[in-house]
Amino acid sequence: MKHSPLQIARAWYMPKMPVAFQTDIELEEGESTESVADQEEIKNLFPYTYGQPIVKFVPGKSQEYPKITVGVILSGGQAPGGHNVISGLFDGLKRLNPANKLYGFIGGPGGMVAHKYTELTKEIVDAYRNTGGFDIIGSDRTKLETEEQFNSCIDICKQLGINAIVIVGGDDSNTNACVLAEYFKQKITGIQVIGCPKTIDGDLKNEVIETSFGFDTACKVYSELIGNIQRDAASSKKYWHFIRLMGRSASHITLECALMSQPNITIISEEVAAKHMTLADVVDDIARIIIDRAAAGKNFGTVLIPEGLIEFIPAFSKLIQSLNNLLAQNDEFSALPTADEQREYIKGSLNEEDLVTFRSLPIGIARQLTRERDPHGNIQVSLIETEKLLIEMVAKRLAQLKAEGVYKGSFAAIPHFFGYEGRCAIPSNFDADYTYSLGYTSSLLIANGKSGYMASVRNLSEPASQWQPIGVPITMLMNMEQRNGKRKPVIRKALVNLNDAPFKYLEKNRREWAANHSSFIYPGPIQYFGPSEVCDQPTNTLLLEHGKEV
Amino acid sequence: MKHSPLQIARAWYMPKMPVAFQTDIELEEGESTESVADQEEIKNLFPYTYGQPIVKFVPGKSQEYPKITVGVILSGGQAPGGHNVISGLFDGLKRLNPANKLYGFIGGPGGMVAHKYTELTKEIVDAYRNTGGFDIIGSDRTKLETEEQFNSCIDICKQLGINAIVIVGGDDSNTNACVLAEYFKQKITGIQVIGCPKTIDGDLKNEVIETSFGFDTACKVYSELIGNIQRDAASSKKYWHFIRLMGRSASHITLECALMSQPNITIISEEVAAKHMTLADVVDDIARIIIDRAAAGKNFGTVLIPEGLIEFIPAFSKLIQSLNNLLAQNDEFSALPTADEQREYIKGSLNEEDLVTFRSLPIGIARQLTRERDPHGNIQVSLIETEKLLIEMVAKRLAQLKAEGVYKGSFAAIPHFFGYEGRCAIPSNFDADYTYSLGYTSSLLIANGKSGYMASVRNLSEPASQWQPIGVPITMLMNMEQRNGKRKPVIRKALVNLNDAPFKYLEKNRREWAANHSSFIYPGPIQYFGPSEVCDQPTNTLLLEHGKEV
Repeated sequence: MKHSPLQIARAWYMPKMPVAFQTDIELEEGESTESVADQEEIKNLFPYTYGQPIVKFVPGKSQEYPKITVGVILSGGQAPGGHNVISGLFDGLKRLNPANKLYGFIGGPGGMVAHKYTELTKEIVDAYRNTGGFDIIGSDRTKLETEEQFNSCIDICKQLGINAIVIVGGDDSNTNACVLAEYFKQKITGIQVIGCPKTIDGDLKNEVIETSFGFDTACKVYSELIGNIQRDAASSKKYWHFIRLMGRSASHITLECALMSQPNITIISEEVAAKHMTLADVVDDIARIIIDRAAAGKNFGTVLIPEGLIEFIPAFSKLIQSLNNLLAQNDEFSALPTADEQREYIKGSLNEEDLVTFRSLPIGIARQLTRERDPHGNIQVSLIETEKLLIEMVAKRLAQLKAEGVYKGSFAAIPHFFGYEGRCAIPSNFDADYTYSLGYTSSLLIANGKSGYMASVRNLSEPASQWQPIGVPITMLMNMEQRNGKRKPVIRKALVNLNDAPFKYLEKNRREWAANHSSFIYPGPIQYFGPSEVCDQPTNTLLLEHGKEV
Repeated sequence: MKHSPLQIARAWYMPKMPVAFQTDIELEEGESTESVADQEEIKNLFPYTYGQPIVKFVPGKSQEYPKITVGVILSGGQAPGGHNVISGLFDGLKRLNPANKLYGFIGGPGGMVAHKYTELTKEIVDAYRNTGGFDIIGSDRTKLETEEQFNSCIDICKQLGINAIVIVGGDDSNTNACVLAEYFKQKITGIQVIGCPKTIDGDLKNEVIETSFGFDTACKVYSELIGNIQRDAASSKKYWHFIRLMGRSASHITLECALMSQPNITIISEEVAAKHMTLADVVDDIARIIIDRAAAGKNFGTVLIPEGLIEFIPAFSKLIQSLNNLLAQNDEFSALPTADEQREYIKGSLNEEDLVTFRSLPIGIARQLTRERDPHGNIQVSLIETEKLLIEMVAKRLAQLKAEGVYKGSFAAIPHFFGYEGRCAIPSNFDADYTYSLGYTSSLLIANGKSGYMASVRNLSEPASQWQPIGVPITMLMNMEQRNGKRKPVIRKALVNLNDAPFKYLEKNRREWAANHSSFIYPGPIQYFGPSEVCDQPTNTLLLEHGKEV
């Protein structure tokens, strides 16, 4: 097998660790905790794991830990650093007791249910240190929800002598981890469950979890590309680049990339929703900046668009809902021979409000909407090329304004979408260090008998040596939400808060960024070997949230 | 103005230079040269610049150089390193005589004709050292061809006291540089012209020019992303990624990226043309590998596609030609109200051969073909999303083969296109060093009275200290070709040679790469500060062409 020079060099990187891990430690337990909302309901649903205290690690006496066996699962979409959670967990377990064993379940939660596993030996773990991807054991999106699944998990744990499971995942996976922990306690299995906060989207964070891993690396990869494109725009002075970025349910990625690269226009879904903006309003806002720049002789620029935008626009969500209702299992529609007839059929069937929205869409996009449907007949929103939708609508609007004499520039636009390019990048130093510490923290939580906890590492805006590992009871993060028509206990998702420092920074500066491409920042590629200020910076989001300068 | 940490750190990078530049030098002239073909014709067209010798730089006595003033032009598409050509040129000129002056023409050759310029002072040059982009003075695609343009250039040179012009560009721009040099000599203006070999496409190379600048960096940026996507494919095991890469007239970028990342499938346009393959053949080849991998339980992988592919397929070029003839200024067609009617109109007008090709295309792509036309009514081939075309056609073919029982896998594909992401990246050490030396070489060629030459630096597969700067007479690279119906002298473009080592390496290994995703290489992002084997590697193409191991 051939490796790139960077793969070879990077394999030797030793993640930086908190000083807390350098001595023997013991746990210090805080006050018992409450869930963020719906305390009574959550307490009733989680009688065995509710109310546990936050735990800290403080210097303690050296002690002997009995041998344990742990199983680890990677759940959901890939995020840079997953492999280092495993290496940190492995090293932590081996330091506690060299006889400890680590199993990996192959192919995510589904693999655990199906009893697919492998022992993670030193040789295997070493081959994946500091690398991107989840390929060491793979992952899937199976939700652990049924008793049948739970019991299958118990079976394989008993079979392998597993004392604890570490689930690496996003908000839903960590909710599942807590459900599992609760079930295991209720059934007196003795099997512990620990979660680790993963998602490039950055929407798993709160008072006690400062960021999810992978967000740092993914944003840096996207920002590298945005910077390159901005330099191209500023050089050729010909094109507007419309750049859609991954992140369906929150706009953290788009916001962080905007802070890193200072584009001319940044759309934040949460702001669009808060201001009750229509798609036409968004288009108008973009057009206005393009017109201003054109008046200054600048017919080029950059626009950042969060993947989830259209789902945050009420009229659009409604239209999608109506189309789903109209077209699912609609044989009459499917039998129509031409696209034009299908379009007429739809126009004849929508109510007035939906019709206005539908008519406002470019024909190509409208057609894509009704064509790209999943096996249930539902529209696949993630396949909608929002950047192209906006380009077409902006072009149309500018043509009108040109006819009215308001706009005198020329408009040529190029679409981009970045998603898969960043999910499996080689983790940045930050993510490599952070995930290693998360894995290491997990081993300590397990060794100290904890279950229904997430590993967390705080003080992340300071150098790694000063980071503070803690254990967070998962029930503390929960509230009740409607999901598929049912009221369920879930970890509250963190959307972009328009009152927090990162958005405020954008808000304060965006007028200047819109006007001056001299504001463009060119972040360049992630560096692993250079000066610390180049290699070890956390995200601007994190720095601003901690009151730091950026 | 805010800069990223990498921008700040990178500004201090001192490009590595050949030892040849460390002493006082003088020129050593070789034998007189001949053009690569059509010697008599080229000689007649370039009586003043034809046949000049290759020049080398050898240690010589210290001498005083009279004060000179130089103008520099960036021509055509951006390529990483353009700014370092300018800083190398600036430093070279200042070392020869601190009183020397450098002007930059704003906005490319068109800017020179329009007399737009700025003096490039130390302050300006310092602000752009080792950065990507052409934004220091901009560029355009104006061709210098008419006497009126030439005379306008002479006027501004006389006005500013310019003794020499450096034109940084691709094959066409360097052809123009030679035409200009010839005209200036003929008119006894005393103004010299020097060219520098630029293009990310890598198709400006030959016996005496080992590579064009920007190719290294662009390929490394694309390979970073391809590697990340491959890791994602290997982790989620769900998707085939179809990745189109910039490079319309040659497939060097795709080939180099394949050598760096070892994807499952690589399409090389030159091979497709040499084997007289149809689009259906290409689709069949891809489908065959997908079926083999599916049989081994692997329903995922990567396919690299050169942007220019369809233009290398004769039936497709013919169809485009026919459609151009049919649709240009065709009011009857444009007046048809629906896409379906337009499609029927086209089907009724094509000859049988074209009709077969047209019918083989997915409807969406066929429609794009006839809709995306330039102001002259011609189809804009570069806007055709070949990766989506192939996905649709492969999906259709696989569905047939599934119905026949040949294929039992599942096929889900994701399209990508990388172009603008790499043209303005921060130059790799290689490109930063190489371009600095090209600029420096230009200053020496000028100081020694040369005109109609290109700066070249050879021995690039060795460390920079051993590089060999030379001057290459441009007529030497020329032959006669048909361009827009006229026979013209042009620099011969270098396509991928199927007999050369880089393609041979792909050919030898691709069967294994198709089968095993364990062959995937993950190059990671360009590094600037780490160990030399990580930071200073030239392209695999260059290494293989020089008989080195990769």
